[in-house]
Amino acid sequence: MSAATFFTPVQAGIQLVEERMRAQADPDTNPDMAAALDHLLQAGGKRVRPTVVLLVGNLLGADREKLVILGAAVEMLHTATLVHDDLIDSALLRRGIPTLNSKWSPTATVLTGDFLFARAARLASEVDNVELMKRFAETLATIVNGELTQYFAAHGLISRENYYGRIYAKTASLFEMCGLSAAMIGTPDETIQAAFKTYGYETGMAFQIVDDILDFSGEQRAVGKPLGSDLLQGLVTLPAIYYAETHPDDPNVKLLVSGHWRDEQKMMQLITSIRHSEAIRLALAEAAAHIERALQALAQFPLSVERDALADLARYILNRRS
Amino acid sequence: MSAATFFTPVQAGIQLVEERMRAQADPDTNPDMAAALDHLLQAGGKRVRPTVVLLVGNLLGADREKLVILGAAVEMLHTATLVHDDLIDSALLRRGIPTLNSKWSPTATVLTGDFLFARAARLASEVDNVELMKRFAETLATIVNGELTQYFAAHGLISRENYYGRIYAKTASLFEMCGLSAAMIGTPDETIQAAFKTYGYETGMAFQIVDDILDFSGEQRAVGKPLGSDLLQGLVTLPAIYYAETHPDDPNVKLLVSGHWRDEQKMMQLITSIRHSEAIRLALAEAAAHIERALQALAQFPLSVERDALADLARYILNRRS
Repeated sequence: MSAATFFTPVQAGIQLVEERMRAQADPDTNPDMAAALDHLLQAGGKRVRPTVVLLVGNLLGADREKLVILGAAVEMLHTATLVHDDLIDSALLRRGIPTLNSKWSPTATVLTGDFLFARAARLASEVDNVELMKRFAETLATIVNGELTQYFAAHGLISRENYYGRIYAKTASLFEMCGLSAAMIGTPDETIQAAFKTYGYETGMAFQIVDDILDFSGEQRAVGKPLGSDLLQGLVTLPAIYYAETHPDDPNVKLLVSGHWRDEQKMMQLITSIRHSEAIRLALAEAAAHIERALQALAQFPLSVERDALADLARYILNRRS
Repeated sequence: MSAATFFTPVQAGIQLVEERMRAQADPDTNPDMAAALDHLLQAGGKRVRPTVVLLVGNLLGADREKLVILGAAVEMLHTATLVHDDLIDSALLRRGIPTLNSKWSPTATVLTGDFLFARAARLASEVDNVELMKRFAETLATIVNGELTQYFAAHGLISRENYYGRIYAKTASLFEMCGLSAAMIGTPDETIQAAFKTYGYETGMAFQIVDDILDFSGEQRAVGKPLGSDLLQGLVTLPAIYYAETHPDDPNVKLLVSGHWRDEQKMMQLITSIRHSEAIRLALAEAAAHIERALQALAQFPLSVERDALADLARYILNRRS
């Protein structure tokens, strides 16, 4: 299955979203900022979030212009969080392309992220829907609060509750908002809105679980960072949780539990153990269950190009290799 | 004249604004973040911006609850920009109290600022007014763009155009939004809205000019940073512009023009020259002209407690010593 399957019906729409994003650098924008924005937009990414917005909205016959604005707003918000994330992680590469952080000072990076937040908020306000704007602001607060929680408290912590809260904040909250707010533009029917909220939530949870699996199983070049980088930073994700649950007597698990995640040699051993254990398969099965629920949420709608594409997109999220 | 003059009619309202700000740390908020928020709220400040919101709104009989929410939103946005500003300036003191930056890591400071932005946006959306939300997002973009311009391009530049653009972005844009959006809650009459937009703009411009004068003439302890700190960072403000215009042959002015603002000894000499020149008085006269226009904008409204308080507030901004 190629990515093209689900992109085809929204290809023109995604181009409009990208144009709208580029238009955020208006003549008043500082030229260095405009260059940074261009760099970020060229770095690309799969535009999965605007694709969800356009597919859900088109399925419901929503206003095209508003969908494009919403798509640009969510991708801009996503980009803003990546910029501040890269600063926080001191990441030098993202999607194989140098991050702003590797070339700019921390100050310029902070301000660039702030600028993207500001433009995302302005775009969201242009949809002219107060409830949608509230959701947007709430999602931004959820994402930032999740980053704070991860930064302050999550090191070496083996906890499903903490993990699910973290990946909801980090990823699923924005996917959820994409599904819900595109539906809000398309229909006042709250049952339909709830179905697409579920679709967004479930695909978002799966998206992050798969990301966390790829951190153990992926090719380093495709992921753009060293294998097991989460665990080396003390961040315990689902594969490590499954491994710890099924191998409580592994001495390296005991080390992790007792807070010694900074012992890089032992953690590298643990990463190898996890890679070769059934933990990867168990985590993938959990992601698959999320995707199954996402597909169920779609089942109530009549057959359409958009429904098929949303189903393809959900399956793609589960099966991707990078 | 004491600050109490204009605070009296809104004292109860300001308390509600502060409660609303405190309530932004809900049970889901990371506890370290909640502590940081508390620290920032205790650091206080004069709450000038929510005071403008409440006075303008009360004068027009606007919905009280919405004014409180708007007041909390603008003060939260102001606090967010201070947090990121302090990081950018590496400031250790603000209002005589240690900044977050002096006690926290840069990462925690970035995230705290982001959290405050998120909460400010959520509050603004709760006013339930799309036009107001657009203004809010636009103002955030203006502020951040101004910070970027200052960061990238303003060092050692002696330019009135650059200066006015900078202080509009940094301070007057938010004051303008306070006046305008409080009026938008109170009345659909665009002439009245324009009058309070002017009041906000003019008091905001004066506020920043006075701040910039205090950087030269103020008591170090009251300002909380060393005298002339702007010029030592290459930031040319109105007193320095007036001095350069009236003393083009001062060798230290020539140094500054040729980009040698990093020569601290010479810049300290220049700061002393400016302090003892007529430049301070000329800059103050310019601030006074802004305040005069703010008072003119009020003149069309019938006598009221709120109108008097807004006039007092404008005069206080001009005459304050810290």
